[in-house]
Amino acid sequence: MEIAVLYSGGKDSSLAAYILKKLGYEVKLINVNFGVLNSWEYAKEASEHLGLEFEVVKMQREVLDKACEIMLSDGYPNNGLNYIHKQALIEVGKKYKRIADGTRRDDKVPKLSLPEIRSIEDKYNIEYIAPLRGLGYKTINSLVERIFIIEEGEDIKKADYEAEIRHVINKNIFPKHKQSRIIGMRL
Amino acid sequence: MEIAVLYSGGKDSSLAAYILKKLGYEVKLINVNFGVLNSWEYAKEASEHLGLEFEVVKMQREVLDKACEIMLSDGYPNNGLNYIHKQALIEVGKKYKRIADGTRRDDKVPKLSLPEIRSIEDKYNIEYIAPLRGLGYKTINSLVERIFIIEEGEDIKKADYEAEIRHVINKNIFPKHKQSRIIGMRL
Repeated sequence: MEIAVLYSGGKDSSLAAYILKKLGYEVKLINVNFGVLNSWEYAKEASEHLGLEFEVVKMQREVLDKACEIMLSDGYPNNGLNYIHKQALIEVGKKYKRIADGTRRDDKVPKLSLPEIRSIEDKYNIEYIAPLRGLGYKTINSLVERIFIIEEGEDIKKADYEAEIRHVINKNIFPKHKQSRIIGMRL
Repeated sequence: MEIAVLYSGGKDSSLAAYILKKLGYEVKLINVNFGVLNSWEYAKEASEHLGLEFEVVKMQREVLDKACEIMLSDGYPNNGLNYIHKQALIEVGKKYKRIADGTRRDDKVPKLSLPEIRSIEDKYNIEYIAPLRGLGYKTINSLVERIFIIEEGEDIKKADYEAEIRHVINKNIFPKHKQSRIIGMRL
């Protein structure tokens, strides 16, 4: 059973991929990239520690630009991030019928609502799976600590949507938050 | 890392337990029983197929009676089921600091809201984990089919709250629905 995991190289998407592999899925790590930066390279490096196949899915620059417009007009990133994430699921859904991500229980964005999830699943005939959706931060931290070696900080180079968004809008619209990147495995 | 999984012998709580075991947790299957029926025996039988430790946690009859009152007064089971489930988490939380259940993404009840989960976690200093909360019915069905041998139907003998509730209120307040019970493992 093949499954595409939207992958940034960070601890959440890595843990989601690890869980799915343990459940017997044939996991492909997918990094979505808009051609603005080569930030996908950071995800590829991290993917090598997991020993899982890696693929870049190129998306249209228009999607990124529209997301940036939404963020600048809102003055905060939430709706723009959700817009990109939804478009990424739809794009990856053209090739893969099972798609997962590292969305956690306590995340605010990107996070699809239950009606949005069901609507995407029905419309595009995909299965959307969020293995961390029922896990709180304590649980995730203790699992990550046991499984991975990570690098954490505010300036970690990662391959999430944020990297390319920051480059395009050239303005810091994101609140300060810690980033993480997988640099090895313990298990 | 020890974790208590609220366990009925059905496919959801069995899958939740299976996932947690795969993640390296030391899983204890816990059946909550009010002393009205020996329905815990069905959970114990199922637990043997999983090869995991099983324990019955006896709860006060008052909790069951109050849940039945709520259901009879409402005319439908949702609030009463949520009440029992919350009390069960709190009771099991006296002994175990990590507690999981088989709540799915598409379940209506018993299902705690995010504020309720956080409040219980903080107040009782427990970690609540719902491994199926990010999984839809297609995903769960395909995993269950691959991992377990199950028996399904409307009259399956199970060890969920419903068994004792039905006995107490002696009236069918539950909408018709399929039950399941683990009778073997494929993996």
